[in-house]
Amino acid sequence: MNFIDIIRKKRDGFELTKEEIEFFAFSAANETVPDYQLSAMLMAIYLNGLNERETLDLTTAMAHSGDMADLSAIDGVKGDKHSTGGVGDKTTLIVAPIAAECDVKIAKMSGRGLGHTGGTVDKLESIPGFKTSLETEEFFAAVNACGLCVAGQSGRLCPADKKLYGLRDVTATVDNMPLIASSIMSKKLAGGADCIVLDVKCGSGAFMKDASSATSLAEKMVEIGRGAGRRGAALITDMDVPLGHNIGNSLEVIEAVETLKGNGPEDLTRISVLLAAKLLQLAGKGSFEECQTLAKSKIDDGTALNKLAEMVAAQGGNAEYIRNPSLFEAAKHSFEVKAAENGYIAHMDAEGIGSVCVALGAGRMRKEDSIDPSAGIILHRKTGDYVEKGEAVATLYASDNSLFAAACEKFAQSVEFSAERPALNPLLLGVVE
Amino acid sequence: MNFIDIIRKKRDGFELTKEEIEFFAFSAANETVPDYQLSAMLMAIYLNGLNERETLDLTTAMAHSGDMADLSAIDGVKGDKHSTGGVGDKTTLIVAPIAAECDVKIAKMSGRGLGHTGGTVDKLESIPGFKTSLETEEFFAAVNACGLCVAGQSGRLCPADKKLYGLRDVTATVDNMPLIASSIMSKKLAGGADCIVLDVKCGSGAFMKDASSATSLAEKMVEIGRGAGRRGAALITDMDVPLGHNIGNSLEVIEAVETLKGNGPEDLTRISVLLAAKLLQLAGKGSFEECQTLAKSKIDDGTALNKLAEMVAAQGGNAEYIRNPSLFEAAKHSFEVKAAENGYIAHMDAEGIGSVCVALGAGRMRKEDSIDPSAGIILHRKTGDYVEKGEAVATLYASDNSLFAAACEKFAQSVEFSAERPALNPLLLGVVE
Repeated sequence: MNFIDIIRKKRDGFELTKEEIEFFAFSAANETVPDYQLSAMLMAIYLNGLNERETLDLTTAMAHSGDMADLSAIDGVKGDKHSTGGVGDKTTLIVAPIAAECDVKIAKMSGRGLGHTGGTVDKLESIPGFKTSLETEEFFAAVNACGLCVAGQSGRLCPADKKLYGLRDVTATVDNMPLIASSIMSKKLAGGADCIVLDVKCGSGAFMKDASSATSLAEKMVEIGRGAGRRGAALITDMDVPLGHNIGNSLEVIEAVETLKGNGPEDLTRISVLLAAKLLQLAGKGSFEECQTLAKSKIDDGTALNKLAEMVAAQGGNAEYIRNPSLFEAAKHSFEVKAAENGYIAHMDAEGIGSVCVALGAGRMRKEDSIDPSAGIILHRKTGDYVEKGEAVATLYASDNSLFAAACEKFAQSVEFSAERPALNPLLLGVVE
Repeated sequence: MNFIDIIRKKRDGFELTKEEIEFFAFSAANETVPDYQLSAMLMAIYLNGLNERETLDLTTAMAHSGDMADLSAIDGVKGDKHSTGGVGDKTTLIVAPIAAECDVKIAKMSGRGLGHTGGTVDKLESIPGFKTSLETEEFFAAVNACGLCVAGQSGRLCPADKKLYGLRDVTATVDNMPLIASSIMSKKLAGGADCIVLDVKCGSGAFMKDASSATSLAEKMVEIGRGAGRRGAALITDMDVPLGHNIGNSLEVIEAVETLKGNGPEDLTRISVLLAAKLLQLAGKGSFEECQTLAKSKIDDGTALNKLAEMVAAQGGNAEYIRNPSLFEAAKHSFEVKAAENGYIAHMDAEGIGSVCVALGAGRMRKEDSIDPSAGIILHRKTGDYVEKGEAVATLYASDNSLFAAACEKFAQSVEFSAERPALNPLLLGVVE
């Protein structure tokens, strides 16, 4: 097979065969085709598209380009949850223990944060002793012991996706539905779960800025899951406003613990329950409504919190931090951002707020950057709230107080005030299944 | 300027500014942008196009990416001639001395052959002693002394085009009008001539297989020439049949000499006179008809032949070979291809015939291949001729007689016979100016 002929075929708008798509994915994974040919192909795909069958074939080929997790050593139904990335999104820390407590096993490989969005692995590593880098047997043993484990991506997971994503990032071929959907789903398929719930974020802090593109992405991903023989569903949820109040690594663990104690912010609690319920429904635990009741009960009776503590202990972390989050070391410096005027907060640019967090040391711009676990933001007021001039809107946390000036300026640019109360988006914008 | 933003802009179908196009061309020339970004851009251009202004800007930028020939040291009007490449096309050897004899100076940089098409530099090098690698001063001195010089491409000629052409070749982005037109014309602009006549070949032996695409390419190139302040015109000529009878390096020099003596084949003589006349017309020597008469007179009175001999001597070659082409050493072996049946030659695939020539050692498949100056083909019969079974259709020449078997088979595949006389294309398919 000649790769130039395959590029030409897609360039001319023809459908590629399964064999041609596999040749593309495996050549990318093994670097047997030069980057300049892969990127010409990516641009041809970007402009001429992939149909449903081609997208499924690409996803499956990328999943099989590396190690496929074999979860057969884990008993029962295995579930997975994926978010397309948002600001203040700590739902995995809440959804995973609820699901595990309901006998849906969570053997989750999770990523690190990049850009304005955080990563679950980074958050968990703010707990002293917590290990995210596990051998396969340790990983399975942890899941079998307590029903859930969240580890960093290990081994050779979807090398084709890794290669192609790296090229897309530098060739203006990122924001394309079939390529985004296949990139996300290839990792989910390789992860090996039976049931996959997707949280497709929509709004200023999300990759998808509007509901129609978020829905279209959700549909593509659910289609792929179905095509690959998995049970999948997606919730389209609002990310025009950061989720919850806390943004930053240990700050988000603290807020997740509060939520599991029943004291969490309303938006975070609701989205977490909905995601957990959808996953439980996929796993056959009842209707969506019944599963919402079931999920809530695991918060109300404290068992989900215990499950999280159990997982933390199983992965070497100090579970005392879960029972008593005041143990988390606070950032050395803090700074209160005050309202410059009276009025409603008309808009908070969630991506901008995420960037403030990165500027404070809580995130990374490049993969090799290190992060500060205690840095971040607590939002005292969010979109729709009324504030008076001089009132604290947020507290910024950092280890170095020279970071506040720029962070403050960026924060101010991310918040708009108005004399009128703004209309708020619903939290749940849609369900795709 | 960020190159990813420029790719994104073209990807989304927007017009690029002059500055953005220059950034692209100069980055390619200086290799300051990675190949995978250049190839993504080439695919975006392939699929979304370049308008007239963008094409002119790209051509000008590629021309200026390297050395621009300064022909001001040469007196009078300077002319150039370019063919898009055919089989048996030795017109430069005829057109250049006619033009020089009419006081249009020819300071021509010419290429080597690649694939099924030959190159003028290779043909001239079959003359013992002929030098095609000249220093700038030698080049200008030769033009000033005898009115014409044909040298190999030297210095840093259009490095942006060289880089981009190399990438287009391996990313399925070759056959695109704006990219082809700008590639050819960038070298013509850098060559420095005032008047440029283009021979756009059309048919089985040409890059452009049909008249409408050949015309479209011709129009784009003439537009570019005009936009860059040069006088230009194009003839669309037939290349469904090889031009003349001889294909191969010394064989083509011999046929060019015969043509300048007035004994050439009708098709070659006619196309050469038309191209010379169009160039003379551009140089202000009269109407197209008057210039045809003028061009013919330089063949009839023997002065164009003398001019070629003068040029050969000026470039170190043995001019006796021009006066008496029987001095050229014949290939060691020859083989007659005989007609397998009675009938008309219905079609000769010119590209196939060109490939036979390469197989005999007369051409090269890769830039680094060496060529055999005496190898090639003499066609005794061409499309439209009636042949009897057993009659010689062609004689193949090679230095190694083991090459004939495969060459013969390929030759047979390139010729079709028919009981009926086929319709022939006109030699001149159109004029664009």
